[in-house]
Amino acid sequence: MKTMMLDPFTRSFGLLFAIAAAVCISSAKADSTSSAPIAIAIHGGAGTIERANMSDARERQIRTALETAVRAGHEVLRQGDSSLEAVTRAITLLEDEAAFNAGRGSVLTHQGRVEMDASIMTGHDLAAGAVTGVRGLRHPILAARAVLEHSPHVMLSGRGAEAFARARGLEFMPDEWFITEFRRNQLERAQAEPQASRTPPTQRWFSTVGAVALDRDGRLAAATSTGGMTNKRFGRVGDSPIIGAGTYADDRSCAVSATGHGEYFIRHVVAYSICAGSLFKDQSLADSADQVVHQVLVDAGGSGGVIALDPDGRVSMPFNTAGMYRAAIHADGQIDILIYRDED
Amino acid sequence: MKTMMLDPFTRSFGLLFAIAAAVCISSAKADSTSSAPIAIAIHGGAGTIERANMSDARERQIRTALETAVRAGHEVLRQGDSSLEAVTRAITLLEDEAAFNAGRGSVLTHQGRVEMDASIMTGHDLAAGAVTGVRGLRHPILAARAVLEHSPHVMLSGRGAEAFARARGLEFMPDEWFITEFRRNQLERAQAEPQASRTPPTQRWFSTVGAVALDRDGRLAAATSTGGMTNKRFGRVGDSPIIGAGTYADDRSCAVSATGHGEYFIRHVVAYSICAGSLFKDQSLADSADQVVHQVLVDAGGSGGVIALDPDGRVSMPFNTAGMYRAAIHADGQIDILIYRDED
Repeated sequence: MKTMMLDPFTRSFGLLFAIAAAVCISSAKADSTSSAPIAIAIHGGAGTIERANMSDARERQIRTALETAVRAGHEVLRQGDSSLEAVTRAITLLEDEAAFNAGRGSVLTHQGRVEMDASIMTGHDLAAGAVTGVRGLRHPILAARAVLEHSPHVMLSGRGAEAFARARGLEFMPDEWFITEFRRNQLERAQAEPQASRTPPTQRWFSTVGAVALDRDGRLAAATSTGGMTNKRFGRVGDSPIIGAGTYADDRSCAVSATGHGEYFIRHVVAYSICAGSLFKDQSLADSADQVVHQVLVDAGGSGGVIALDPDGRVSMPFNTAGMYRAAIHADGQIDILIYRDED
Repeated sequence: MKTMMLDPFTRSFGLLFAIAAAVCISSAKADSTSSAPIAIAIHGGAGTIERANMSDARERQIRTALETAVRAGHEVLRQGDSSLEAVTRAITLLEDEAAFNAGRGSVLTHQGRVEMDASIMTGHDLAAGAVTGVRGLRHPILAARAVLEHSPHVMLSGRGAEAFARARGLEFMPDEWFITEFRRNQLERAQAEPQASRTPPTQRWFSTVGAVALDRDGRLAAATSTGGMTNKRFGRVGDSPIIGAGTYADDRSCAVSATGHGEYFIRHVVAYSICAGSLFKDQSLADSADQVVHQVLVDAGGSGGVIALDPDGRVSMPFNTAGMYRAAIHADGQIDILIYRDED
C-alpha cells in the first residue's frame, strides 16, 4: 500500500484552500438565510401586577432579568442556531433568576418544598418533552429537553423524571439553593390566612416563565417552566408541563407559551387552541390569541396570558390580568421590555 | 297559635293529590326529554388484534365484558341520569375486568408495579379531573371524578393523588389484587427481550379503556383509564390522563376518548383536535375523527384509535390498527360489539 506524501507547499495550499472553502460555504449559508426573519418573545408570568405594588428596585430587577434573557435568546438566533436552543437559553436564565417562579425562587408547596414542572416543543417535527413534580433539578427545562431529545416518551413525572435527568448528567442543587426568604414568607402568609380570605389564585401562581422563538430556518419552538402554585397540595399539576395547554409549537401555525390559572388553561387547551384557531379558521395569530385570552378565558373566569409567535415572526402577547412580565425582540430588531397593561 | 287539624278524608285526598302531582311532573319531564337522543360508546384499546392470535375463549370474554359495560352505561342514560354517571359506570366495570389494561389487570411497570392514570370530563361546563401514576386505587376513574367534583384542580399526581383519593374515602386494594399472571409473564417477556427486538409498542399499550356518552339533557361526557405501557420507566405519563390528548368533551362539538401510542396522541392533541376540527372547520365529527386517525396520526407514525360522539348522538370509532375492542349503543337503540377491522 502506498502512502501519499505531499510537499510543504502543496500541504499549505491545501490547508488554505480548505479554509477558503469553509469561509465561502459559511458565508453562502449566512447570505441565503439572512433575509429570513428571526424573533423571540419571553414571559415571566401574568397576574395582579400594578405600579402601586411595585418597588422601583423590584421593577428594575424584573426589567433587567427580562432584557438579559431575551437578548441572550436572540443572540442564539442571530448566530444561526436553532429556536430550540434559543428558548432553552432564555429559560435557563429565567430559572436561575430568583424573582421568577421557576427553578431557583420557585414557590413552595404545602409541605414547604419546591416541585417544578417544565415542557418544551419544536414545531418542525412536533417533538416534545415535559417533566412534572421534579425536585432538586437546577434547570427543569433541560430535563424537559432531554426527554424531547433522548427519550421515546413525552412526559415523565416525579422521582422517575429525576432519575432520568440524573442518568442524563443534569445538574442537581440542594433544597436551600431553591428556597428564597420571599417564598418562605409567602407560604407562611398563605397558610396563616383563614380559608375564607385565602389569597386570590391570581397572586398565587404568577411568575411562571416561558419563551417562544423563530429561527433562520423557519423553525418555531416553545418552552415553559414553573414552580406551580404556592401552597399546592396532592401533587397538583398545572398547565405548564402539559403539551397543548401550557406549551405548543407547530411550524404551520404558531408557537405559544402560557401563564395563568392553569386549570382553565388545561380545560380550554389554550396553547393548542390558539394555534388551531389560526390554522383551521384562517385567522391571524393575533386574532386567535386575543379571542382565546380575552373571550374564551374571560368568559370562563380564567386569568392569565400567553406569548405567541407566528411563522413570519409576528409576536402577540395578550393577557387579561393587570400586568404580564414580557419581552420580545421582533423581526425588525425592535426590543420591547414590558410589565403593565398601559405599556402596550 | 292555632294548629290546623285536617279530617282523615282531607288528609287522604291531600296525599293522593301530592302523589298525582309528582307522577304528573315526573312524566312531563320524561315526555319533554324522551325524544332527545341518548347514546354511548366504549373502547377496550386498539392494537394488533387479529383473529389468528385470539382464542375463542378470550374473544368471548372480551365481547361479554364490552357488552356488559356498554349496556350498564346505557341503562344509566335510559333512567335519565347523567352522561357523567354513565361513563363512570361503564369504566368502573371495565377497570374491574382483568382482560383490560386498567384497574385490575393493568400492565406492569419496569419495577413490576401497577401505576395507573385516568381522566374524565363533562362537556356542558368543561369541568375535568385527572390522576396520574396512582397505585392501589381499585377505580382510578373514581379518583379522576373526585378531582372533577371536589377539587379546585384538574390534575393530581402520584402519592398526592392517592392521599386525595384516600381523603375522599375511595377504595384501595392490595397489590396482589391488581397483578395478573398474564401481565407478570408479559413483563418478563418484555424484559428478557434484547433491546433490538423489543416488542413493538402497539403490543405494549393496548387495552386502555374509555367511554363517551350523551344524556337526555344533551350533555356529553368522556372518560379514559389505563395502566399505561408494559415495562414503562421514569414515571412515564401517556395521553390517557391528559385533557385534550386522551380525553375531551365539549357539548358544542364532541366527546372523545383515545387509545394508542400515547406520545403521538399528546403531540397531536388528538382528542381536542377532533372536537376543534368539527367546531372550527364545520366538518362532521366522523370526518374530523377520520382525518386525525387515518391521516394526521398515520403520517406521524402514531398507531391507535378513538371513540367519538357528537351532540346529536352520532358515534364514530375510527382506528388505524388491526383491531380495536369497541362497543356502542346508538341513538336508535342499535347495539354494536366489535373487535376486528372487517366488522365495521
